[in-house]
Amino acid sequence: MTYCVGLQIDRGLVFMSDTRTNAGMDSISSFRKMHVWEEPGERVIVLMSAGNLATTQAVVSLLEERSKAVPDRHSTVMETPSMYQTARLVGDTVKEVIAGSAPAGQNADAFGASFILGGQIRGSEPRLFMIYPEGNFIEATEDTPFFQIGETKYGKPILIRAYDRQMTFAEAAKLMLVSFDSTLKSNLSVGLPLDLLFYGRDSFRVSLKKRIGQDDTYYRTVSDGWSAALKAAFQQLPDFPDQAP
Amino acid sequence: MTYCVGLQIDRGLVFMSDTRTNAGMDSISSFRKMHVWEEPGERVIVLMSAGNLATTQAVVSLLEERSKAVPDRHSTVMETPSMYQTARLVGDTVKEVIAGSAPAGQNADAFGASFILGGQIRGSEPRLFMIYPEGNFIEATEDTPFFQIGETKYGKPILIRAYDRQMTFAEAAKLMLVSFDSTLKSNLSVGLPLDLLFYGRDSFRVSLKKRIGQDDTYYRTVSDGWSAALKAAFQQLPDFPDQAP
Repeated sequence: MTYCVGLQIDRGLVFMSDTRTNAGMDSISSFRKMHVWEEPGERVIVLMSAGNLATTQAVVSLLEERSKAVPDRHSTVMETPSMYQTARLVGDTVKEVIAGSAPAGQNADAFGASFILGGQIRGSEPRLFMIYPEGNFIEATEDTPFFQIGETKYGKPILIRAYDRQMTFAEAAKLMLVSFDSTLKSNLSVGLPLDLLFYGRDSFRVSLKKRIGQDDTYYRTVSDGWSAALKAAFQQLPDFPDQAP
Repeated sequence: MTYCVGLQIDRGLVFMSDTRTNAGMDSISSFRKMHVWEEPGERVIVLMSAGNLATTQAVVSLLEERSKAVPDRHSTVMETPSMYQTARLVGDTVKEVIAGSAPAGQNADAFGASFILGGQIRGSEPRLFMIYPEGNFIEATEDTPFFQIGETKYGKPILIRAYDRQMTFAEAAKLMLVSFDSTLKSNLSVGLPLDLLFYGRDSFRVSLKKRIGQDDTYYRTVSDGWSAALKAAFQQLPDFPDQAP
């Protein structure tokens, strides 16, 4: 499994992904699920993936034209005129990869993969998309300012409750870590380290890219602090008033 | 969907279930998912169900021998010598019902249902079981003192963090409501009202049975208070320390 979140705030975009992949409980590996294309001053594009690892790696390889010799490669996502076209490109690539796997008589569902795509191209606003295994996609709006893929349920309640468009990057990173920590504590197939990326609106540069591991001091503070804070918050609430045995 | 939790604490057992069933988004109804058999001074047995409504209703009907004329009915769960035998009886009944549906050539998975069974029979300890659609079952232990069925993920993080064997019934009810509130806020197919039941160890009587609706003052206090308390807890945590745009 996997857990990735893309969040749109007034100040820009925030992305976080875990790195665990598993094919059964006894076959666990670490793979980067966050891919970044950057042309400083012109465009930043971030793609996060969940689902079949062969499919997601094939999609990224095709986007980067890795089948060509190194000097001939021109990553196609560096040439799209808009984020919308980028989302279409990714969607079409997903369809192509899955169609290429399915004729072997296998169940196409097994090759499924979902993506969160975000970024900004000079001349337009920062945008955030979720791309389905079928290749179609939706865009984040005021009403739905974040997308999750993978193991989304454990970490959703806190996102719903604490998200605020006007939050700072520091607050958004904290929110992400709390949401990931709830998921890490509940599902073994989501694992450290985590990849975090900040993109500041109209900067056309990756503002921060960081890998957060088990020993990260801030992660430890949030993880331990959140357990304690939750317990304290829980204690504060009044107890059930009816008479009990 | 459904959400039910059965919790074992030193003082006894606590059960909560929602009441929403749906066959598609436009076919939503309210059904009791908590069934209680009580012989005061002798035994209390509580059964909660999730899954196919036809299956769960058939199981309960068979347990109550509703196919017989009213004077001939002797609910079989009132006659089992132990909770373990009761769990076997429920498991066998589930298998029987699903086997009876499947020969029609349909997918047996569609008829699946899970159950949480708890209670106490004079002469033994209070016990809590989870029964799978296959009819086999597991029992709660010190390490796994609660069971969830249905839409379990949203409400699990707080159960993991705030559960304590020594908690009072009033605290346990609060914990249940917070867990249900997170689920209600995240999944439309889990709905109010909720059924709550306390069973005090060695009482051999239902200690409290209450239906909690939208207008319940304590529910409103917990629901609103928990959102505020979570936000406050979140604010308390230190912000991400790295420089941000």
